[in-house]
Amino acid sequence: MTLSQIDEEVAKLLQLKAQLGGDEGKHVFVLKTAKGTRDYNPKQMAIREKVFNIIISCFKRHGAETIDTPVFELKETLTGKYGEDSKLIYDLKDQGGELLSLRYDLTVPFARYLAMNKITNIKRYHIAKVYRRDNPAMTRGRYREFYQCDFDIAGQYDAMIPDAECLKIVYEILNELDLGDFHIKVNDRRILDGMFAVCGVPDEKFRTICSTVDKLDKMAWEDVKKEMVNEKGLSEDVADRIGEYVSMQGGQDLAERLLQDPKLSQNKQACAGLTDMKLLFSYLELFQVTDKVVFDLSLARGLDYYTGVIYEAILSQTIPAPAEQNGADEAGVSVGSVAGGGRYDGLVGMFDPKGRKVPCVGVSIGIERIFSIMEQKAETSSEKVRTTETQVLVASAQKNLLEERLKLTSELWNAGVKAEVLYKKNPKLLSQLQHCEETGIPLVAILGEQELKDGVVKLRNVASREEVDVPRADLS
Amino acid sequence: MTLSQIDEEVAKLLQLKAQLGGDEGKHVFVLKTAKGTRDYNPKQMAIREKVFNIIISCFKRHGAETIDTPVFELKETLTGKYGEDSKLIYDLKDQGGELLSLRYDLTVPFARYLAMNKITNIKRYHIAKVYRRDNPAMTRGRYREFYQCDFDIAGQYDAMIPDAECLKIVYEILNELDLGDFHIKVNDRRILDGMFAVCGVPDEKFRTICSTVDKLDKMAWEDVKKEMVNEKGLSEDVADRIGEYVSMQGGQDLAERLLQDPKLSQNKQACAGLTDMKLLFSYLELFQVTDKVVFDLSLARGLDYYTGVIYEAILSQTIPAPAEQNGADEAGVSVGSVAGGGRYDGLVGMFDPKGRKVPCVGVSIGIERIFSIMEQKAETSSEKVRTTETQVLVASAQKNLLEERLKLTSELWNAGVKAEVLYKKNPKLLSQLQHCEETGIPLVAILGEQELKDGVVKLRNVASREEVDVPRADLS
Repeated sequence: MTLSQIDEEVAKLLQLKAQLGGDEGKHVFVLKTAKGTRDYNPKQMAIREKVFNIIISCFKRHGAETIDTPVFELKETLTGKYGEDSKLIYDLKDQGGELLSLRYDLTVPFARYLAMNKITNIKRYHIAKVYRRDNPAMTRGRYREFYQCDFDIAGQYDAMIPDAECLKIVYEILNELDLGDFHIKVNDRRILDGMFAVCGVPDEKFRTICSTVDKLDKMAWEDVKKEMVNEKGLSEDVADRIGEYVSMQGGQDLAERLLQDPKLSQNKQACAGLTDMKLLFSYLELFQVTDKVVFDLSLARGLDYYTGVIYEAILSQTIPAPAEQNGADEAGVSVGSVAGGGRYDGLVGMFDPKGRKVPCVGVSIGIERIFSIMEQKAETSSEKVRTTETQVLVASAQKNLLEERLKLTSELWNAGVKAEVLYKKNPKLLSQLQHCEETGIPLVAILGEQELKDGVVKLRNVASREEVDVPRADLS
Repeated sequence: MTLSQIDEEVAKLLQLKAQLGGDEGKHVFVLKTAKGTRDYNPKQMAIREKVFNIIISCFKRHGAETIDTPVFELKETLTGKYGEDSKLIYDLKDQGGELLSLRYDLTVPFARYLAMNKITNIKRYHIAKVYRRDNPAMTRGRYREFYQCDFDIAGQYDAMIPDAECLKIVYEILNELDLGDFHIKVNDRRILDGMFAVCGVPDEKFRTICSTVDKLDKMAWEDVKKEMVNEKGLSEDVADRIGEYVSMQGGQDLAERLLQDPKLSQNKQACAGLTDMKLLFSYLELFQVTDKVVFDLSLARGLDYYTGVIYEAILSQTIPAPAEQNGADEAGVSVGSVAGGGRYDGLVGMFDPKGRKVPCVGVSIGIERIFSIMEQKAETSSEKVRTTETQVLVASAQKNLLEERLKLTSELWNAGVKAEVLYKKNPKLLSQLQHCEETGIPLVAILGEQELKDGVVKLRNVASREEVDVPRADLS
């Protein structure tokens, strides 16, 4: 039994005990959030808002609309979409009525939405929480409830233009979030399949070998090869041939070179993928993002539904995650990967009664990972994160001025000024100034008998302590 | 069996059939969202964003922070908080681990958050979805998944100051949303309890008589009285005495008059409530909102946890809701009510192991009702709702200029301009202009051989058809 399983069992037993009345009939509450979930406190929300604003601005700059779907879907809608991972889906209790499950990602609901509304082209983003009964590693930003942040372009268009825009978007967002240097690996499912074919991998082993290749970002080639040979039953020859290809990295030049490769050039799939890769790089050149994009034959990505180009963005230097007991192996999994996506031309057709396809390409921003990094940055930075936007606190040094303070505050609100007032009849000036220091309010509007008589307000700059009298009429 | 129950049974059977493989082994998908839920399409999202922006700006103007909590809580956290309505809570399936339920409102998670983090004062808003297995009436904006939009002030403060701010906030939001005339009813739980006591209602019947009084907004007094006498077992005398009080409406003057009432003035609870009501109105006067606020002794509000002032905002003229089969009676329930709240000083203490109380007052904006009204307004209005913010479409009338179009689009993005380009090698100018008309893009940047040679872009105003050449360098 792991520690977290024990915690869960204890929580369950305490709940049961509380329901039974506990000892001496006292109600024992378990004061916690569900396993793998967290509250966002105001500071975390302020960071979350900042990140969302940057990302949403980018999506809007690219002309995207947004949609939202319910947090749960018919269980049937999710069935058969996630392979083995289906066991991680949260089901709702059968309380009569339909059988429901919490959404596992935003892509399947998007495909369901397109098919249901017979939409054949749309450029949309969707930012919402999804749910996985996974083993949480919360200090590294892995939760059972977490945000996904998806941008997708659906529609029948000329090759690689929307695909290039997705990469441009990743580039812009990572630049603006200021997370340090990064690079974006690009590959194509058709190139992978063609490569496996010419290396001599039997058709039925493409997917499983693909998932072994996917481990190259956290395992040495020697170990990957061992898995191919010992577990997946490839011959050493075949594995070595794969090994040659997956060590290749480059740009448009590599695509051109591989189009001349005596073996790959004989494979239809590979040729189609390589030709598109060349085209993609020519568009990326126009978008001025090739400095960060690498054509990398070892990039495989796990999901079954990809049919064309795939990509993944990786941060070069990541802030080290706090140590945890789950083993060093796991720690490597998500280090640095902050966005990923690709083309999936078959998924919508799975929902259409007549199987009509809607080609799609999209990208998912790994927002929880980004939150974690931003939170760690905020903690080590000397700058304080403000959780309110209040511009001015209405205050007084004298007694019996509550009514005047409320009146002035109301005037400020009516003028659109973000203002606060302490909910006390006669607060001390010191505690009013302290409230400003603690919450970062830059200005205090001080009222006293003299100011009221003169029709002014004393505006005090909290940081510099400078004071200036402002005519009351100028404030609203 | 009702029609909706039959629909549900059919959906369930079809799901089962699909799981079993259906006829001829074909997979039959039920292409729908779960009962009582809906997708938001881009147009609905644009309206939702507009409404949220107005409301959030108001909350921020008043110095509020925001928090978020998980969509599910330990089942135990929700137990014993909602009385009879507990049957409407969605439970998650027991898949091992903790027993979980979807949140039913935002107030209980807020109280759990305060107790768990030992927070004794905060001013926060929380906008999020909540879940109720209720009978949906979706055309009237009643769903099983719906937004709540709560603003609450927690902390030990001088009487009625935060309470007055909550009312000011309701006033500001309803004004800014421009939903037509409205008024806000105010009452106090202590005044209601005092009134029941002096009218001769036995203590143990306070709550049940309270919920009968609550029906006065949709039932005539004669019917309410019948319920009190025939169902709740009050004598006619007692009911008539209640009837006299609950017909009273007024302002500060009414509070003053009732403080002189020979019976009420003898009741400690009522006096405390009436004194606070007087104070509340004096603050509302300073906030200049008394033109819309009515002290109304018939306002009761259903929830058990209120301990002091309560209020509800009602639109005077509502856009008539589409007819539905569920009976005219039900249609009246929510007509016009778009915000409500009150003081609940005991709730946080229910979560604290030592029962420490944190006084709270808050308001919930009936955002789904507001969405419905705004959507109906948008449909009857001639103005088109834009779902993107794109400022300019990069276009060409000539062939073979895809690369130039992509290059210019990228320059615009880099300069922060919201720009789109069609994903076609050689789109017709007409279809490019049509895209602008359909989506409301105001400008087209047209590129041709001549413009490229001259180093300019032809900017065309879609509405006026005016064209002007702009030097390329001025664009970015």
